[in-house]
Order: sequence, then structure tokens, then C-alpha cells
Amino acid sequence: MPYFDAASSAPLHPVARQALQASLDEGWADPARLYREGRRARLLLDAAREAAAEAVGCRPDELSFTSSGTRAVHSGIYGSLSGRRRVGRHLVVSAVEHSSVLHSAASHEAGGGSVTEVVVDRTGRVSPDAYAAALRPDTALACLQSANHEVGTLQPVAEVAEACRAAGVPLLVDAAQSLAWGPVEGAWSILAASAHKWGGPAGVGLLAVRKGVRFAPQGPADERESGRAAGFENIPAIVAAAASLRAVRAEAEAESARLRGLVERIRTRVAELVPDVEVVGDPVRRLPHLVTFSCLYVDGETLLHELDRAEFSVSSGSSCTSSTLTPSHVLRAMGVLSEGNVRVSLPLGTPAQEVDRFLDLLPGVVASVRTKLGAPVATAGPADAEEFVVDSLGRLCPIPVIELAKAIGNVPVGGVVTVLADDEAARLDIPAWCEMRGQEYLGEHPAGEGTAYRVRRVS
Amino acid sequence: MPYFDAASSAPLHPVARQALQASLDEGWADPARLYREGRRARLLLDAAREAAAEAVGCRPDELSFTSSGTRAVHSGIYGSLSGRRRVGRHLVVSAVEHSSVLHSAASHEAGGGSVTEVVVDRTGRVSPDAYAAALRPDTALACLQSANHEVGTLQPVAEVAEACRAAGVPLLVDAAQSLAWGPVEGAWSILAASAHKWGGPAGVGLLAVRKGVRFAPQGPADERESGRAAGFENIPAIVAAAASLRAVRAEAEAESARLRGLVERIRTRVAELVPDVEVVGDPVRRLPHLVTFSCLYVDGETLLHELDRAEFSVSSGSSCTSSTLTPSHVLRAMGVLSEGNVRVSLPLGTPAQEVDRFLDLLPGVVASVRTKLGAPVATAGPADAEEFVVDSLGRLCPIPVIELAKAIGNVPVGGVVTVLADDEAARLDIPAWCEMRGQEYLGEHPAGEGTAYRVRRVS
Repeated sequence: MPYFDAASSAPLHPVARQALQASLDEGWADPARLYREGRRARLLLDAAREAAAEAVGCRPDELSFTSSGTRAVHSGIYGSLSGRRRVGRHLVVSAVEHSSVLHSAASHEAGGGSVTEVVVDRTGRVSPDAYAAALRPDTALACLQSANHEVGTLQPVAEVAEACRAAGVPLLVDAAQSLAWGPVEGAWSILAASAHKWGGPAGVGLLAVRKGVRFAPQGPADERESGRAAGFENIPAIVAAAASLRAVRAEAEAESARLRGLVERIRTRVAELVPDVEVVGDPVRRLPHLVTFSCLYVDGETLLHELDRAEFSVSSGSSCTSSTLTPSHVLRAMGVLSEGNVRVSLPLGTPAQEVDRFLDLLPGVVASVRTKLGAPVATAGPADAEEFVVDSLGRLCPIPVIELAKAIGNVPVGGVVTVLADDEAARLDIPAWCEMRGQEYLGEHPAGEGTAYRVRRVS
Repeated sequence: MPYFDAASSAPLHPVARQALQASLDEGWADPARLYREGRRARLLLDAAREAAAEAVGCRPDELSFTSSGTRAVHSGIYGSLSGRRRVGRHLVVSAVEHSSVLHSAASHEAGGGSVTEVVVDRTGRVSPDAYAAALRPDTALACLQSANHEVGTLQPVAEVAEACRAAGVPLLVDAAQSLAWGPVEGAWSILAASAHKWGGPAGVGLLAVRKGVRFAPQGPADERESGRAAGFENIPAIVAAAASLRAVRAEAEAESARLRGLVERIRTRVAELVPDVEVVGDPVRRLPHLVTFSCLYVDGETLLHELDRAEFSVSSGSSCTSSTLTPSHVLRAMGVLSEGNVRVSLPLGTPAQEVDRFLDLLPGVVASVRTKLGAPVATAGPADAEEFVVDSLGRLCPIPVIELAKAIGNVPVGGVVTVLADDEAARLDIPAWCEMRGQEYLGEHPAGEGTAYRVRRVS
């Protein structure tokens, strides 16, 4: 049963399971106590901290275990912002950070702070120059992911860290997606990560704060974990997290090369096998195990459902798969197609045959979803008017794009199709369709209860 | 190897271990995902929520799983204070709450809120009338533990809840120490608890918020657990927590009766076997498994060390065992002796023989510690002055009390001994000694770099 969503959560690594079970007998006591059981728990905790610190590339006393990657990000951002309050209240983030970073930024802004979101290019990558230009004298903190969780693009962390160092601004790196593959390079100040992304158990995050970084933990005082992670330590899970991080690092070189090959196969073959598909993310500077593509005229939720019926578990950034019915903020920031979006992220050890089976199956699944939706099979047709209006008000993704594709044949080259739509995904997907089909996107304007999107037929 | 510190953390219950291991294979995926692995994880999470809610006595949709009891308390207090900000910013707590509550209160006060600490009597119990009198029109929240974690005294939660209901103030109950034994009675609004206290794994807290209670989660937005507990759910641990709560409840009636007998034996025999000992906490309205006593002229750290050498693991509220060198705030609030303090909290299944062995051993251990410290064996002696000054500046607990006990024989009945001390424990322990020995405590005043404590010899 192929599970292709390691970027959400990886199956428990055998070493994690073994370490967890082995430490259940000794890891339950309070490590702050001086009696025998407490001392044993403390030894386990100290050893786990040493192992994890080595993998992160920091000193053990710089590393705290939090209860999740999300908590590591929250504590890291708030602790740093508070520690540097005298400098100012400006925060810089990239537009494609994980929601834990962006929600922290929103909360900081709601509390009177200011936030700059650095834009990304069409591959999802920030430009180091643009990032450097966002730093100000009152910038308290800058945040950048090591790699994007939805499209796999690596960020230029070392260059951005250098720009931050030059500006005297600490850089927090969200390394959740990349830490399994290696330490984060460059002079970062704060690092956050999450064990269940590398096959460790849930309930363990890492927060590393370099010595010398101004840091003031927020929230009620708590003496555990240098005051940076309130609550009783979950030592068996921490032991399992550290042990599995070492284990995946030991396999990282060989496994990343192997998975990179499989991902490359998906990138190439999907574009060949599935018509009207956009493979997104940087083709070279990328995570080894993750690939994302979007299929025109496809409803992401139905596609995921059909893949699940065929026993493939993947995720999607399409609007119809989100609780808010808006496309993923990452795809939006990149300006790429969001409809029929599929993210494939391979767990360690994924057999090549599973990938081949996925590639055998995908074209048929996409075609069947398109047929059900009445997707256009040909866009050519008799041109009978210079202007044509499609009313897609009240219709959800991918219908407005399908209607547009059908209608474009109704105008001559040079003619204009206007799509009326109120679905949020249309704002992203109509321009993306134009880009993919070589038609000219003229822009949007409010129209009644929706928006009018205008497209000129070019070919 | 007798472990008598269940109130800090209980050994993992066999049912917790079994449930944890059984759910490792199915509990690692993201329960928010719609594919097979996600649906399975969601089923486990839902079932655990139903089981835990039944044990708590609330609806499943009122219950969130947090990453610890501390986090449940923090989220509960902040969410409620924020939800009722329009009412006011006054918070009521008892003086003997767990540090997670008192630190939240301190943080609230630092942020401009106001806090009233309701005093307790010598048994550690709040008076419902005193608690009711602390409620004000601008009180946003009241907090009361179900039972005290250091001395085992049950609090009058139902009466206080009724007073809060009448005043329209929500009551948050910290049920960490009692939830294993049964649901909290009375009309509480918010409840917090911690799984590792009942033999569940670390990393799981419970936060129940009754429907209709105004509640505004604080911190960055996060869609998990009704927005009340940020971060990826640790489902295997949650399953283990719920399963073990059911299991300990099934044994609760029989086991509480049995442990209550053992604790009663300790209460009675310690007072008989060890001279100059004060058994503290309510003798009747108490937790079944916990008993606390303090030994005059004994250094708590040495006592714990000697008990640990004899393979007994207990904890202490003495100043010398705390990182801040101050006596436990609970003992201080009760006004009872803190030196040589020992808390015994029996895990489920503790054999009677272990308790007997502890009682056999304790008198000798206490006597040997006293001998090392040069504790007074008799306080009678020739009276040679109406006033006698003992200089204990720079000496730590229990030395000032030992010096006082030795010196009291140097004045005639009616004479006064003044102890100069700068150790924080003296402020609590000198009056407590007077109470125990039937001498008259005259009060304290600043003297040089320390404090002068004056005691009149009465007998």
C-alpha cells in the first residue's frame, strides 16, 4: 500500500520504534529528580541531546526538545522577537513558509508588530538579494525554510544567512523538511525541526538557539529545557527521535540518490504521460524525495480520492482539498496552477516498482476525472464572436478553467473571453492556464458578486 | 526497588505500554488527511477522545489533547482570560496551586492583570467562603486544584464551583493529581490533567472546556484540537493515555482503599517511630496514595540521598532540594515545618511489604542524619541568661532550627532566644518549630544582612 506523503508525516522508522520501546522502562521518571529513576531518565535525555545536537550541528546546551515542530517554530520566533524588542518589531519571512511560521507572523502583526513577506519566483525560491533588501534597521528576526514543504525547492539559506549576519539580524531556519538529509549549511542563528518528518515519533520538535543570540522565552516560566519548552519531557519519544535522526542520516547519502532518481522519473514521465500538466518547483535545487505537479481541468479532491481508491496516498494544495477552499499559499505565491495539484513525497525505502505502478495508473485516473468533469478535449472550434462571456459564478475549481478552455474556441484569434467567477482558485488558475496554453491574460476586475477575468486568444 | 514518587510521574501502566505499541503502526499519519492512513489515525484519535471524555465527564467535543498537563493549564488559563477580557482582568487562584498555575498567574500579572491568591489553612485547604469572597465583578477566571500535589489535601471543588457559578465566573480545575481516582465533582468550567501522573505516557495533557464557556485560544492560529493545542497530534501516546485512564479507573475503587490503608499506616507509624516529626495535610479529606511529613533538625537533601541509597525514591519540599533554595510554596502557605520534608506517593500496586520496609528503615535514617548534623538530643540544660542570641547567618536549613533548639535550654522559662538567620527556610521553620515544641514565637525583624527571629521559652 504505497504511502507517498512523507512530507506530512513519515511512518515510524524501525530504529525509532526500537529506541522508543527500549526506553519506556527507564524514561518515564522526572529527570529533574535526584533519585535513581530520575538519574536514569536524565542520562537518557542527555544522551539524546548530544546525539541530536551533533546531527543538527550545534552544541548540546544550545538544543531544546519541544513538543512539536510547530512549538519549536512558535517558541523560536517569539523568543527571538522578545529578546530583540529593543531593536524593533519588524519580522521578515518568505511568502512560502510553513503555516506555523506565517501564523506566528500574523499573530505578531495583530499584536502591533510589522511583517515583510519576501516574494518567491515561479520555482518557489526567494532571491538572496530580495531577501537582503527586506532587512531593516528595526528588523528583529528573519525566517527562512531550508526547503519548501509543498514543492521541494531548496532555499538559498547560506546566502540569506550571510546577508542577515551582515545586517546583524538573527536568522531562524525552519529545517523541518530537510534535516533528515543533512545539517543546514550557513550561519543560521535559530533552527526548528520536527521528528515525525524524519520517521521519529510525533511529540518531539527541536529548537536550537546559538549561544549569543538574544532570546527571551515567552509564556509562563517553566524550568525545563532551558525555559524554552514548558511541560514534562517525553523522554522515550525524545530518545527515539534522536536515534532515528542518526539512523536516517546514516542512510541519507545512498537513499537520497536513489529517491532523487525516482523523483526525476516522476518529473519526466508525468509531463510525458499526462496532457495539460504543470510540474512545479525548482527542477534541480530540490529535496530528493518530493515532487509536485498540477493537472488542468481536474478537481484535486476527486483525484486524491481516486488515487486513494487505487491505494496511493498523496496530498494536494488544491483549493478543494483545503478547509478554507483557497489554494495553497505556496502555489499562490509561486503563481502556478493549483487545480488538480498532487504532491508526491516518498518515504525512505520506497520501492521503484511502487513509483512505476503510480506512473502506470496516473494517466488513466486523471483522464477519468477529466471525463467526469466534462473537460475540454479540443479547444478549436468555429469562431463566432469577438467577445464571449462565460458565467461560472457559484462554480468551484476546476470548472471555471474548464469553461474557459471550452469557450476559447468560440472566439477568433484576437478575440476575448471573459470568465465570471467567485471561486478563489480562479484568480490563480486562470492566469496559470494562460501561461500553459500560450494565451494572453488581460487581467481581472470586480463584476457583480464575483470577478471578471479577461483572456485574449492568441493562438 | 520501591519508587514512592508517583505524584511526580507514575511508571508506565502495562495497558499504556500495550496501547502505545499497538498504535505505533496506525497512529503516525496525519489525522487531517483523507487517505487511508489518515483516516485510520483519525479513528484512533476519535476513539481515544471518546474514552477520555467519558472518564473526565465531558462531551468528546469539549476535550482537547495537549502536549502536557502544563500546556493544558497554560492554554486553559490564557484562553479563558482572553475569552473574558471584557469582563475584566482579575484572576483568582489558591496559594497552593501547582507551579504551572502560579507561573501563569505571575505572567498574567506581569502583563497588567491582577491576581488574588486565596490562603489555605494549616492542612492546605482553602475555605469555600474565603474563596467566594475573593471573586469580584471583574474576575475573569478562578483556578482551584482538585487535590494538592505536595500534601494530598482535597480541595472543596464542588462548593467553590457553586460559588463561582453564582458569581458568573468560570472555574478551572487542575485535576492532575486526582483524575486517576475519579471524575471531578461539581460544576467546573475548564479542567486540566496530565497523563503521566496516572501511568499514561509523557507528552499528553487533557484540556476540557465546557460548551458555553467563553474561550479564545492564544498564540498563533493552529487548526488542530479545536485550536487549543498547536502542533501535530501524538496519536500513539494519546491512545495510550486514554486506555490507561480507563484501566486505572477500573482498579480505582479497590486500589484506593488498599493504598489508603498503607498511607494511614505511614501517617500513624511515622509519628510514633520518628521523634520530632510533623505529619502534614488533611488527615481525612485527602488523596488515597500520598502522605507528607517533615522531620525537625534534618537536612532534606541528605535525607533523600540516604533514602535513595536504601533504594527508596521519594521527593521533598525542603528548601535544600529546590533549585531556588526556598521551601515549597505549599508548605509555606500552610505555615508548616519544611525542614526534613518527605513526600511519599505510592504508585498503583505498591506492595504492603515495601511500605513496612520503609517504616523499618526511616527512623534509623533520620537519626543518622540528625547525628551528622549535631541535632539536639535534649533541649533541657542550665539556664544562664534571660536573653540568648544565636548567630546562624550564612547557615542553611536545618542548622538555624537546630541552633535554636540547642539554645532554648540556655534561657530560663520566660527567657528569649533570638536567632539571626538569612536562610529563607528559617522564616517558615522557626515558627513551625515553636508550634511543635510549645514555645512562643514572638516574631521577626530585619537585623543586619539577615533577619532576627525571637522565641520565648514557655516550658
